[in-house]
Amino acid sequence: MLQSPVILVLDLLGTFAFALNGALTAARAARLDLIGVLVLGMMTALGGGILRDLLINVPPATFGDLRYLAAAAGGALLAFLLSVELERFTRLITVFDAIGLSVFCVTGASKALDAGLGGVQAVLLGVITAVGGGTLRDVVVQRVPTVLTSDFYAVPALVGAALAIAALQLDLPELVGALVPAAIAFTIRMLGVRFNLRVPRPRQHRLRGAADDPDR
Amino acid sequence: MLQSPVILVLDLLGTFAFALNGALTAARAARLDLIGVLVLGMMTALGGGILRDLLINVPPATFGDLRYLAAAAGGALLAFLLSVELERFTRLITVFDAIGLSVFCVTGASKALDAGLGGVQAVLLGVITAVGGGTLRDVVVQRVPTVLTSDFYAVPALVGAALAIAALQLDLPELVGALVPAAIAFTIRMLGVRFNLRVPRPRQHRLRGAADDPDR
Amino acid sequence: MLQSPVILVLDLLGTFAFALNGALTAARAARLDLIGVLVLGMMTALGGGILRDLLINVPPATFGDLRYLAAAAGGALLAFLLSVELERFTRLITVFDAIGLSVFCVTGASKALDAGLGGVQAVLLGVITAVGGGTLRDVVVQRVPTVLTSDFYAVPALVGAALAIAALQLDLPELVGALVPAAIAFTIRMLGVRFNLRVPRPRQHRLRGAADDPDR
Repeated sequence: MLQSPVILVLDLLGTFAFALNGALTAARAARLDLIGVLVLGMMTALGGGILRDLLINVPPATFGDLRYLAAAAGGALLAFLLSVELERFTRLITVFDAIGLSVFCVTGASKALDAGLGGVQAVLLGVITAVGGGTLRDVVVQRVPTVLTSDFYAVPALVGAALAIAALQLDLPELVGALVPAAIAFTIRMLGVRFNLRVPRPRQHRLRGAADDPDR
Repeated sequence: MLQSPVILVLDLLGTFAFALNGALTAARAARLDLIGVLVLGMMTALGGGILRDLLINVPPATFGDLRYLAAAAGGALLAFLLSVELERFTRLITVFDAIGLSVFCVTGASKALDAGLGGVQAVLLGVITAVGGGTLRDVVVQRVPTVLTSDFYAVPALVGAALAIAALQLDLPELVGALVPAAIAFTIRMLGVRFNLRVPRPRQHRLRGAADDPDR
Repeated sequence: MLQSPVILVLDLLGTFAFALNGALTAARAARLDLIGVLVLGMMTALGGGILRDLLINVPPATFGDLRYLAAAAGGALLAFLLSVELERFTRLITVFDAIGLSVFCVTGASKALDAGLGGVQAVLLGVITAVGGGTLRDVVVQRVPTVLTSDFYAVPALVGAALAIAALQLDLPELVGALVPAAIAFTIRMLGVRFNLRVPRPRQHRLRGAADDPDR
């Protein structure tokens, strides 16, 4: 099925933002050269969409459409070239991540619905698209994934994906139905970071090893 | 092809047990909130089956059948709510894991054979189904996967899968052909844990970093 | 489409070499028994090809063709049996890895082109085939993947894949068009190891945690 221009533009924007984020993360992590930065940037940018496409059993769009590869490589390369300038703005990494997150939850959910999945599954696939790339990035650089440790990471993706599916089922105009959920997801994520919001934890929680990396 | 009720019930049971196990692991690992517990529980529960379905190139059953999602989410949620009560019973985590392991090796092998794969490959896919979810769980929480370090983890899955394939090829009644191999796999796993059974190691084995986490 | 004998032989050779490499890595890492060695050897050997097949959405060749499983299991088993003898030759692990790398970048790119992908994507898939298995191995034993930290790991794969695609598009005889790129990739990799070649790094590079494992 033909992709709508709105979804395509958002998807490329998310890809670019996640590539910047992944590449900056790589540059801040240890000993990564140009190749390492490119690999980690592209993995972060493309990982979520590839996971989604594997799970709905369609050939990953990335490998049929050069624009995704170009957006991912471009974002990673830019981050490599400007790593010194960008590194001073630590908050930028979080902002790029939040853009990718909020855009991908909407496009992922919408593509899953297009592929014929039910609403619940489409919402779940939206979340997987949104958090998948960053989770791969974290696993590869040996960090406990943000989605497990940061309270308000999956929540905004869940809200954005659910709103996007609701908008599609209400037949809202596509631009509104995609942009508003993405904006809401972005806002929730940034508020979560800003005010360090928390979801409930298991009672009498024991700390053990693992996530020494508190938050970002 | 229609799934038989025996395989379906076992599969849902394994999903539920692995979700409990993964969620309890998450609650015992560091700093995981409700979302982290749900994510890790569902990843543990659904990961093996998703890997299997990807490898035999069919759309993952999880995303076509809400009952799997419900079993996984239910198990994870229950573990979250009862984490204090359940945590006192450390052995329970191992038991739930053994249930998932022994059930999934049988259902995974049987589904692979249904999908037209040869016997050897079906056995291997049974093992992958059984150990896949726990391996994902371990990788994500930065542990060396149990399948690599615990001597009797892959062995019971291998035995269970091989017996299930043998039973299918002998045309044994399905209930017997599924339940007996699962029970045998479960017994071997629990005996392995109880008596700390070992398979051969490379001679003059050097210890280096990695698996400081001996067993569970 | 029928696989050519040249590609098949190279593919099996790469599988065997990567299995030896992965199994030796496992034997040197912590506390791995026969099962752990087999699992890690087979994961290293088969991981890259499975990733490639998933990404081009064909059923993984491994599970349709017992020869791959046999080559992987044979290499891993041999490494297990000879681990003491082989361990003295540390350099051997690197050589086996370089063989797998240089062979898989050629066969992976060639298969992707066969599957109808464009040239750029085929080159990328060649690289993924070459580095995928080793990356899985590193993630599973909790190491930052070589592809991120070693300067000349992805570069030879990229060169080999690009040359293989060029040779295919120039209609060179298959033996030449496969062997020469593989030999060049192997040479670049070994020169990279020998002379510790470096690609550019981000300026003012900060070291932080992660890759304490410099090179191999």
